[in-house]
Parts: sequence; structure tokens; C-alpha cells
Amino acid sequence: MKKNILIIPGDGIGQEVTTWGKQVLNRIAEKYNHEFIFDEAIMGHTAIEATGNPLPDETLEKAKASDAILFGAIGHAKYDNDPSAKVRPEQGLLKIRKELGLYANLRPILLFDELLDASSLKPEVLRGTDILFFRELTGDVYFGEKKRNEDNTFASDLMNYHRYEVERITRKAYDAARTRNKKLCSVDKANVLETSRLWREVVQEIAKEYPDVETEHMFIDNAAMQLVKNPKKFDVVLTANLFGDILTDEASQIAGSMGMLASASIGDGTGFFEPIHGSAHDIAGQNKANPLASILSAALMLDIAFGLQDEAKAVTNAVSETLKAGWRTGDIANSETAADKILGTEEMGAKVLEFL
Amino acid sequence: MKKNILIIPGDGIGQEVTTWGKQVLNRIAEKYNHEFIFDEAIMGHTAIEATGNPLPDETLEKAKASDAILFGAIGHAKYDNDPSAKVRPEQGLLKIRKELGLYANLRPILLFDELLDASSLKPEVLRGTDILFFRELTGDVYFGEKKRNEDNTFASDLMNYHRYEVERITRKAYDAARTRNKKLCSVDKANVLETSRLWREVVQEIAKEYPDVETEHMFIDNAAMQLVKNPKKFDVVLTANLFGDILTDEASQIAGSMGMLASASIGDGTGFFEPIHGSAHDIAGQNKANPLASILSAALMLDIAFGLQDEAKAVTNAVSETLKAGWRTGDIANSETAADKILGTEEMGAKVLEFL
Ligand SMILES: CC(C)[C@H](C(=O)O)[C@@H](O)C(=O)O
Ligand SMILES: CC(C)[C@H](C(=O)O)[C@@H](O)C(=O)O
Repeated sequence: MKKNILIIPGDGIGQEVTTWGKQVLNRIAEKYNHEFIFDEAIMGHTAIEATGNPLPDETLEKAKASDAILFGAIGHAKYDNDPSAKVRPEQGLLKIRKELGLYANLRPILLFDELLDASSLKPEVLRGTDILFFRELTGDVYFGEKKRNEDNTFASDLMNYHRYEVERITRKAYDAARTRNKKLCSVDKANVLETSRLWREVVQEIAKEYPDVETEHMFIDNAAMQLVKNPKKFDVVLTANLFGDILTDEASQIAGSMGMLASASIGDGTGFFEPIHGSAHDIAGQNKANPLASILSAALMLDIAFGLQDEAKAVTNAVSETLKAGWRTGDIANSETAADKILGTEEMGAKVLEFL
Repeated sequence: MKKNILIIPGDGIGQEVTTWGKQVLNRIAEKYNHEFIFDEAIMGHTAIEATGNPLPDETLEKAKASDAILFGAIGHAKYDNDPSAKVRPEQGLLKIRKELGLYANLRPILLFDELLDASSLKPEVLRGTDILFFRELTGDVYFGEKKRNEDNTFASDLMNYHRYEVERITRKAYDAARTRNKKLCSVDKANVLETSRLWREVVQEIAKEYPDVETEHMFIDNAAMQLVKNPKKFDVVLTANLFGDILTDEASQIAGSMGMLASASIGDGTGFFEPIHGSAHDIAGQNKANPLASILSAALMLDIAFGLQDEAKAVTNAVSETLKAGWRTGDIANSETAADKILGTEEMGAKVLEFL
């Protein structure tokens, strides 16, 4: 198989971790006789510094022309503390999602037995948890009109959804539920929001096409609570952009650390694969970041974008073996981890390569 | 002290639990020589059934005329599953918040040592947690214009904030932080939302008036994660209406159960005190609901609305003693709780009265 893969390291630890996602893809290509051709592009703070634009045209063109994208992370504290900045790193990410039509963000909450202890939740609460989030990615309050009046006494963001936007992700989520435990929980705030009522109506309609899947509707406040209380009860969780942003980060604690979670954004064209963690500038360039989420993002790419299930499995297994052998990065170590088992980004990435 | 207290039981278990909040207030009046004059009014589903209106004028008038309100819960599954219903129980609650100018919702996450085991979080993660949430209550996407186009292909909700709305709650939160551990964390999504950028600007400005309080700004997705990972790091958490709705419910798991958490809504006029749990129709009328959140809401009323700190303390102590003596309702029992220690609503309420 011959594929063009675009690497967009982005900001902060994005640079360090995507290196390892890429190396893993390279090793897979060698081992399974594929040809992966890599190109690289800039986005986010890095792109603002270089060009003034968080998503340069060149990056967008390369993205559209590639078969899949491996992305790192985005953001910089400089902008976070300056609410009045007009050009912001995140605009790059939001724009590429929109331009590539990446409307479904899949976030599997994959639990490695070895990491049960790394979570703040009790092992008995966690054991057996297996959730697949479908977060809508191109609508909601993220993209609606934003206003600020001239004297800075008022600001607004429009939260909106079109029926077709809800329909297309809902079908994807139901299709996935069919291949899993046949349970779908749609999360909204239909007791308050009109967008949520439209959302719920559409899900109720489409549910009829999937009588074999059990459908539940839950308010976001309740879902945020249930996810901590009893994560096992969820199978496929379907939700809007903003609620999905919140719930999936919350759910990362189930997997022990954000450093473990990969995501796939799919839609009309090129698929986009990225860790769910952020740019973590506080540890960037210090060889401390956990490369596993980027490596697992590469595995998702192999699986979802290229249909290479065996190759994807090989990567997940290598990660699993690395953990079984006791290797940890700082974020997934605990008080019982021996000091010589705690590795930096480079060493951890190299271990996974060894097991491949 | 002579006070007029309005009881609004609302829907579902609201009826059963407010009885106990009221009885506790009665006992306190007796014991400390106060005169509490009670009146009752309807709201929510109950009010729709009786009058067609989720907040009848009579209820609103009584509310305005009273010194404090003890509220139960709101909502009914009938409306949740009918996204097209025009009249909804929740409208009653939202309207009374707006009409009474209840802009600050205070939700203390009070941890009873006896309940450390009831949580899905590890005791060592929980121990020492003491968070006070300030959730804004009269703005945000809750009250902005809602639209639905005629052919049901589009819906929107306007998320908006006025500067003065952010200012007034921010000051209240800082004032509280001063009397506590002098840390304030403001939660927003300033990397995406204009309302959040206004929010952050205002908080940054007001922070200068409180140089003795340490200020942190956190994105909502990160906050939802940190709250599970390390709840101890928070002291006062300040946030907007929607984010507050989500975070406080999530945080309820820290206290072991929603059934334990009380809240106070304050602002320009009469204060409004309520459990954070919902109407739980599935267990309503079965003597299963936990009355402690309503009882603790009564304690918050004594403290915040009437300035009766000793009386409030007496109530909290009675709850604590009840728990120490091993008494539990189903929601806060665990596998090690002896069957004869698990009580119904009535029996649990009566125990607290005994300890008073
Ligand atoms: C960086 C930010 C705009 C982004 C989001 O909110 O979507 C991030 O949190 C994510 O989840 O990918
Ligand atoms: C019932 C609902 C409208 C309400 C809210 O979202 O504010 C509730 O969840 C709460 O937190 O008081």
C-alpha cells in the first residue's frame, strides 16, 4: 500500500511526540511492505511565528492532497493570557477541521490493565470500561458568529446546529455501536437548549433505523457525573462539539492520563489523527512528554484511514507490551514505580519500536 | 429572629426531601428561639399540571415577599423525551432565577470523612478536598435568544454575557476566596469563545483588587479533567452558567453522591436554597431519596440568608453525627454497609432531628 502522510507537529510537545508517531509508521511500512511517503507542515503558534497565519495556505493544500494527517498539539500560554489577541493558534486547528470537513471526532477510551493504578478512580470502578466517544467537530458554539460590542461591555457566541450535521455523525455513531456492545448514549442539554432539542429529535428519528441498538439520552450535567461514578455503563457516547470537548477530557482520567489517548477526526476527506492532550509548554523540549498518545494516533490512522487492522493491532500490542514490561513516562508512573522504569519521551518511543 | 420562609417542593423527590429541610428549620427555631413562618408554593411539572404555568404568578409573588426560599427539585421525564414541548418544568426554575436576580449559585463541595468510601475516587485523592463553586446563574446560553427555523433544519441558542454580570459574581467569588484558602480558579474556554474572552478580561481586571488571592485561569476541558485527577488543588472555582452546571454535577462525585450536596443561589433579593440533585422520578414516592442535601440546604439558608452561623453549624454537625453513627441512605451506602443501617428518607430525616 502506498500512502502520503502529512505530519503537522504543531506547538509545544507536539514536536517531540509526533516524531514517535512517525517512526512507528515507518517501522510498520518496513515490516509490512508498505510505502509511506511523509511530508511536513506547520500550524498553530509555530505557523503564526513563521508566517503570521495559524493555518498557512500551503499547509491546507498539503493537507487536502495527503491521504492522512498525523497532528501533534496546538496552543501557547501567550495567547491564553491575552484574551484580546485577534490571531490565535487554535484558529488553525478549528479552520483545518472545517476545511477538511472533519465532522466526527472519535475518541476511544482504551484501558490498559497495567495502568489501572495510574487513575484517580478506583480500579473496581474502572475495570471493564470501554467507551468510544463520537464528538461532533464542525458545528456548535465553536463556529457560530462571535460578537463583542465596541465598549467591551458585551460579548456573544452563537451556538447552532443544522439537522444534516447532527444526522451524519449520528449515523456514524450508530454504525459503530452496531460493531460494539450495541448501546448508544446521546448527551445533550435538551431541557435548556434549542440546539439540544433539535439534536435529540434527530437522534430519536435515526434510532428507529437501528432497533438493535439500545438508545439512551442523557443531560450533559448528569453525563459528567455518571462518567466518574460508573464509566462502565457507557459504550458509544455521541455528543456535540462543546460537550464532547469537556466529556472526553474528563474521560481521559479513566485511562490514567491524557498522555495515553488518541483521536481520529474523520469526515468527507482526509482523516486527521491526533493525541487529545494539548501542547503542554511547561514540559516542552524537556524529553518528558508521553509519546504513547501520538503512537496510538498512528495506530488509529492505520486502522481507520488505511483499513490496516493487523498493522494497527501490532502497534497497540507493542504499546501494551511496553507497559507490561513496566516502562512508564512520568505522567503514568505512580509512587510504586521504580525510578529506573521511568523513561523520557525518546526512551519510551524507542521501547515501543523495540517491541514492534 | 423572625423570618418568612417559602417552601417550594417542586417535582419528584423534591416533595419528600423538602419536608425534612423544613422540619430541621422548625427544630432550629424551637431550639434557638426564632420564629420561622412557613408558606408553600408550586413550581415546575407540578405547577404545569395544576395551572399550565411552570411558574405561576402567585408563586413568584410569594417568592419575592419571603425572606428565603427552600426549593426541592424540578423536571419530569415526560418532557425530556419530548424535545418539541413548548412548556417545560425547567422554565419555572430558570424564570425564578432571573426574576429574583439570583446571579450567584454557591455550591460547596463538603466532604464528610465518613463518606470517603462512597466515592468512585480513591480516598487518598479525595482527602482534604474543600471546594466552593461560584456558578453564574442568570446569563450565558441559558437565557440568550433561541431559534428554530420552520422546517426544523436549524436551531440556535445565543450564548452571551454582559460585563456587569461577570463583574458582580467575580467580586463575590473573590470575597469568598479571601475568607478561605485565598485561591481562585476561573474556568472558561477563552481559546474558542468570545464570551469567555470577555469573562477572562474582567476576572483579570478584578484580580488586581485582590492581590492577596492567587488567581488561575483554566480551560473548561482541562478543569473537567483536573477535578477528577486532583480535586484538592481547587479552592474557590468561578465559572459561567453552563460550565458551572457541568462541573458542579461532576464534582458531586467527590462528595460521594449528589444526594449530599446543597446549593445557595443569591443575588439582589431573596435567597434560594436547593439540593443540587434533580427530581429523580424513578425513585419518587418510594421513601428512598436522601434528605441530607435538603437538610444541608436549610443549613446554608441559616448561614447565608439569616447570618445564623451557630444554627447552621448545629445542622451540619447533626448530619455529621448521623453519618458517624453509621446511618446511610441507599445512595451513600456501599457493599460493606450493614443492611439495618440503610434507611429510607423518613427514617434518615428523623435521625438527623434526633441528633439536633
Ligand atoms: C485547542 C482547542 C480549540 C480544542 C477544542 O476545544 O476542540 C482542543 O481542546 C481539543 O479538544 O481538540
Ligand atoms: C434543571 C436545569 C435547568 C438546571 C440547570 O441546568 O441549571 C439544573 O441542572 C441545575 O443545575 O440547577
